[in-house]
Amino acid sequence: MKNFKFQAPTKIIFGKGAEDSVGKEAKKFGKTVLLHYGTGSIKQYGLYDKVISSLKEEGMEIVELGGVLPNPRLGPVKEGIALCREKKVDLILAVGGGSVIDSAKAIGIGVPYAGDVWDFFTGKSKVKETLPLGVVLTIPAAGSEVSADSVITNEEGWYKKAMGFEVMRPKFSILNPELTFTLSKKQTTIGVSDIITHVLERYFTREKNVELTDRLSEATLKTVINNVRISIQKPQDYSSRAEIMWSGSVAHNSLLETGRAADWASHLIEHELSAIYDIAHGEGLAIIFPAWMKYVYKLNIERFAQFASRVWNVNVYFNDLEKVALEGIKNFEDFLKEIGLPARLEQIDIHADRLEEMASKCTEGGPIGEFMKLEYQDVLNIYKLAL
Amino acid sequence: MKNFKFQAPTKIIFGKGAEDSVGKEAKKFGKTVLLHYGTGSIKQYGLYDKVISSLKEEGMEIVELGGVLPNPRLGPVKEGIALCREKKVDLILAVGGGSVIDSAKAIGIGVPYAGDVWDFFTGKSKVKETLPLGVVLTIPAAGSEVSADSVITNEEGWYKKAMGFEVMRPKFSILNPELTFTLSKKQTTIGVSDIITHVLERYFTREKNVELTDRLSEATLKTVINNVRISIQKPQDYSSRAEIMWSGSVAHNSLLETGRAADWASHLIEHELSAIYDIAHGEGLAIIFPAWMKYVYKLNIERFAQFASRVWNVNVYFNDLEKVALEGIKNFEDFLKEIGLPARLEQIDIHADRLEEMASKCTEGGPIGEFMKLEYQDVLNIYKLAL
Repeated sequence: MKNFKFQAPTKIIFGKGAEDSVGKEAKKFGKTVLLHYGTGSIKQYGLYDKVISSLKEEGMEIVELGGVLPNPRLGPVKEGIALCREKKVDLILAVGGGSVIDSAKAIGIGVPYAGDVWDFFTGKSKVKETLPLGVVLTIPAAGSEVSADSVITNEEGWYKKAMGFEVMRPKFSILNPELTFTLSKKQTTIGVSDIITHVLERYFTREKNVELTDRLSEATLKTVINNVRISIQKPQDYSSRAEIMWSGSVAHNSLLETGRAADWASHLIEHELSAIYDIAHGEGLAIIFPAWMKYVYKLNIERFAQFASRVWNVNVYFNDLEKVALEGIKNFEDFLKEIGLPARLEQIDIHADRLEEMASKCTEGGPIGEFMKLEYQDVLNIYKLAL
Repeated sequence: MKNFKFQAPTKIIFGKGAEDSVGKEAKKFGKTVLLHYGTGSIKQYGLYDKVISSLKEEGMEIVELGGVLPNPRLGPVKEGIALCREKKVDLILAVGGGSVIDSAKAIGIGVPYAGDVWDFFTGKSKVKETLPLGVVLTIPAAGSEVSADSVITNEEGWYKKAMGFEVMRPKFSILNPELTFTLSKKQTTIGVSDIITHVLERYFTREKNVELTDRLSEATLKTVINNVRISIQKPQDYSSRAEIMWSGSVAHNSLLETGRAADWASHLIEHELSAIYDIAHGEGLAIIFPAWMKYVYKLNIERFAQFASRVWNVNVYFNDLEKVALEGIKNFEDFLKEIGLPARLEQIDIHADRLEEMASKCTEGGPIGEFMKLEYQDVLNIYKLAL
């Protein structure tokens, strides 16, 4: 077990009607709020009106910036920074999913910083302060409602970069599972793909003696696997929506990383895909992660066998653990297909023509990953396995 | 699943040598620190010297108050409050186990309060502020290093009372498993008894649809059960000590309570025992908890069967779930005996003579418990089952 630090300071307010307290929570951080949101679904289902009225009840001044797209971009982030400075905004309220929250985080760190906010994403500068951030979550997926991270795409060169500092964790996050009743099957399953891979990026490690973290991770995986099957059959089933929503936060508040280093290679490999092709992150992950597994599992067959046994109840044959390991990967792939996710790049119209370009961009800062260090050729091989 | 709030703001610094950063962490909260500790073992093994030198390196002023006893008492708490006021202490550093931390919490809330600190324990006043608290943990057991709670015994009438407010969570807690290498078998196992019952007090619920919380709880239980068996054989085995230490915090930072109400009846029933007989809390719990289980399991046989199946791998007979449930309780009792804990009150020289008095004190504020509301006669029955 590695030494670690852990802190989950975001105040979670979870349950039916939780969004009613947004004004009260926001008010603690000042008077003027930037209300940041996406492309309209919050207006469609009445959430926008509820949030506005709760903020107004507390006498808050509201500045609005909507229109955040999936795979959020640097341009609107810079617009948000300028707006916050002009209107002397005290806090940002992100109402939406991971894209909106990530965009809000980037705005938050940009406001007090004299340089170009992209500096934080290239590693040129370190984040020391941020505007406080509150969240009303509408899509369980990215875990950004509890995480310290932000992922932004720079339209100049289509670089998609992730970064994070502890101060960037939201001050509060409001999670009402009822707000996810209207998510389509596709939105639900790509969210679940993201949640599951957040666990798996940390689970596949060569670190020994991380039993509690392993078992907590397996608990989260089993819960999500069970409940997404219910949610796609019964979109308005509160319990399964609640299990998925809470699992999404537990998966990414760093608890499941304690005692070991995460890998993140598959996320980086996927980021190149969604930067160029603008596909959903969770969709790309459903394709890339199993390909990564097949490419690397031999480095720690016992761990992949543990995954097969504990998560998928695969029978263990101690004289052939490789067979067990492969059966676990197959179970995972079958599950992804069962819930309707694509299994291969070609199914989502991505072909061989730009694989070299993506592999090259993905490794231009050096090898990626922790479980196995991946060079250009490895990443290219994984893209090819995923075709 | 019930609506809930969750926040785990305590900064955990976990691992080998973690105590070296105590000065740096403490310094963030001011210049003058009250160093609060127990009856000497921290001096015996060199931890005291390490802490003093780390604090001095940061130029801090140190005020000392040692001598905290197990089942910490109100008298020394009041002494600590007076001392903090006199020396203008900025923060309290608790170096020890649950008793020391609970005592430090009580001092912390007493300092800025004009009335009698016992008011908080009787419910007469609510905690609004506290001196900041840091912890160097030496015994994994109480979970007080992350919790919002304190348990203090008032020598006047030997009332042992628990209370808690969110502001009371420590600002930082330093957890080095190496500091637990010198714990005796008895200290180790009574700590584990406390950890396990912290999970079980939340696990046995009649709330439906708490799958993630259930599975996280089972993960924690299995980890502790596996690793205490290793620790008592090999007291200097880092990994098993680390698993137990981290499990102790996860068990009690409120994560395993999300979505349901905890019971706490067994803790209250035990508090009466340890207030009068001054036995170790974990020892009393090892006796009381199984007695409570036998008294209440019929209210939710399915849940006790789940415990049997998932935690103890008991075979499930669907035509006789009661048999499964009882086998789970038996497995738990056998495990407690196996690690050397007492199974009956008479083994620790507690006899029938004061059971009525304890049952009466325990229920004088009304019925206790959540899974089953227990009146005077119920509590008495449980004491009798435990004899």
